[in-house]
Amino acid sequence: MDESALAARSAGVRARMAEFDVDVLLLSLGADLPWLTSYQAMPLERLTMLVLPVDGAATLVVPRLEAPRVEPHPGLFDILPWDEDDDPVALVADVAGRGMGQPTAVAVSDRTWATFLIRLQSVLPESRWMESSLVTSPLRAVKDRAEIDALRRASAAADRVAAQLVGGDIALVGRTEADISRDIGDRLLAEGHQRVNFAIVGSGPNSASPHHEPGPRVVGRDEAVVCDFGGTLDGYCSDITRTVFTGPPPAEFRRLYAVLEEAQARAVEAATVGTPCHEVDLAARAHIESAGLGKYFIHRTGHGIGMEEHEDPYIVGGNNLPLAHGHAFSIEPGIYIPGSYGARIEDIVVATDHGPDSLNEVDHRLAIVDG
Amino acid sequence: MDESALAARSAGVRARMAEFDVDVLLLSLGADLPWLTSYQAMPLERLTMLVLPVDGAATLVVPRLEAPRVEPHPGLFDILPWDEDDDPVALVADVAGRGMGQPTAVAVSDRTWATFLIRLQSVLPESRWMESSLVTSPLRAVKDRAEIDALRRASAAADRVAAQLVGGDIALVGRTEADISRDIGDRLLAEGHQRVNFAIVGSGPNSASPHHEPGPRVVGRDEAVVCDFGGTLDGYCSDITRTVFTGPPPAEFRRLYAVLEEAQARAVEAATVGTPCHEVDLAARAHIESAGLGKYFIHRTGHGIGMEEHEDPYIVGGNNLPLAHGHAFSIEPGIYIPGSYGARIEDIVVATDHGPDSLNEVDHRLAIVDG
Repeated sequence: MDESALAARSAGVRARMAEFDVDVLLLSLGADLPWLTSYQAMPLERLTMLVLPVDGAATLVVPRLEAPRVEPHPGLFDILPWDEDDDPVALVADVAGRGMGQPTAVAVSDRTWATFLIRLQSVLPESRWMESSLVTSPLRAVKDRAEIDALRRASAAADRVAAQLVGGDIALVGRTEADISRDIGDRLLAEGHQRVNFAIVGSGPNSASPHHEPGPRVVGRDEAVVCDFGGTLDGYCSDITRTVFTGPPPAEFRRLYAVLEEAQARAVEAATVGTPCHEVDLAARAHIESAGLGKYFIHRTGHGIGMEEHEDPYIVGGNNLPLAHGHAFSIEPGIYIPGSYGARIEDIVVATDHGPDSLNEVDHRLAIVDG
Repeated sequence: MDESALAARSAGVRARMAEFDVDVLLLSLGADLPWLTSYQAMPLERLTMLVLPVDGAATLVVPRLEAPRVEPHPGLFDILPWDEDDDPVALVADVAGRGMGQPTAVAVSDRTWATFLIRLQSVLPESRWMESSLVTSPLRAVKDRAEIDALRRASAAADRVAAQLVGGDIALVGRTEADISRDIGDRLLAEGHQRVNFAIVGSGPNSASPHHEPGPRVVGRDEAVVCDFGGTLDGYCSDITRTVFTGPPPAEFRRLYAVLEEAQARAVEAATVGTPCHEVDLAARAHIESAGLGKYFIHRTGHGIGMEEHEDPYIVGGNNLPLAHGHAFSIEPGIYIPGSYGARIEDIVVATDHGPDSLNEVDHRLAIVDG
């Protein structure tokens, strides 16, 4: 990413910092840091932290042994490597306090480890602390054209794996969920992802557990199998769910699936610019409730997606945020009958001035695969 | 893991909470939670948190859609699922304050996201906050026999991959670092790991960057290649580094490597029960310094290992903690000449009453592999 585009992001962030009276932003884990600098911190105990004051130069405090990984952007930030016997928290506090002693209001990135926040609070006891997402999230949620292109490429790569699944090219019956999960992960990499973020495979009664951890259960015939998978491709995430049946599905499952398919379509249709997120959630929920299955839809309809697998905007009851052109999010209702089976259909959708744009295109009809 | 063993851990934790006047422990991401409950939180925006008061019942606050993943241990904790329109932070604060309004001293797990800590602090403004590692880390650092067995199994699996590397069974020359990294990851899984945590491959000048991100560089002949990899097997981590050369190494590299090999051996030898961690670090460092290469050894000698890839005890200057029977840690000095090449040798070692026990057994001699 070129430096002028990154500089424009920093300028936008600083304008919002001024608006919210935030003196300094401290960015460690999470996507705020790579979004502003192209550099991602390692999720380990050695602190990496960008100190971005509302005015003046930004400084990336980084372990010396990780400094060679940083692509320098002298126009954006200075690099301050710390040695193994330095105290990086004291270093960050020093840089953050430059010219003001202790900053009044500090925003720290949401996924920063608590251990660092606690230590920072103890060396900057006069400061007020808030989450960086207050500043960055509305900016990051609206994707520009290059970001939507990146999301589209990631979704297309996930689509190719989903097409293999519904086309019966991925053996299911007789294999463990864990084995199928690994297979799907390999296919995500083969289709261009640099990293697998997750590959949920829930079969039979496990398909009724939305976040099931794929395990030793062997997939049998005549079972529902929910596969929800995604990875990161060129910095942006994919996320898709398809549900298949290993044999002719019983009538009650067909009925449930038809309700789900219609609910998903209605939520996509509702995802127009200006519509509040909770109304999009309600579009799926009301249809499932009208079929008498409301109590089996136990999660929100979707989540935003971008450099993080889940980010703003959340498609959930109570979220009044109106969708804007460039918002990207999942639409993924599910219906789960405990002990029996479940189903979920998920696509990534972008709200645009021309209407909802579904980035995933794999058929939604119930696929019968016999493995 | 059986419930009585978990209960014994909880009892040990509660004794230390009483000693440090901690009213309640709040455990989310990181290994404290699975170490006490066998349950691991998902690293996502929906809060999972165990509320463990110094006296009375513990409660696991968990998203309803993840509740089916929790193996119930009614003798250890109650399960309190929250719905998508609940406020989990308020729920945690309510449970934590049971019987005392606001707890005076709260310890929160080190890797909890800052976003949750900030919100907890705003609903419990009278509480004092500290890191849970104050309570748990000295307990978790001393591994029992079952844990050492688990670490040994993970190390043996990593050893089998390292043996393939130094035996020349993994093609290097002509392949990209990223491709080799993926290959090593696949081999870690094939040898029994459930998860790959990292597979660093740094070739040529990249071998001088200790935490190099494997990239598009194609490995050539007559180059140093540092491979540092590990995964998780049955909940415990492996971590090993070997350096190979793709052709006959130049004399200066042979000399550097001989210094490194001796430094690593000296640190292992020094890792006896009762020796302070900084002296183990010094054993490697002094030898490298005496060879005039001190400024090229830019990181600590090692880190503890267990359910987390890096944990206490850290083998680093300034750490006065004396090693105890059951401490498990890496010994991994490295020497890095910027722009030219680097080398690192790493084994996992357990301090025991019978002396240091190296869990990795793959040959340390410089392996010449031509890919």
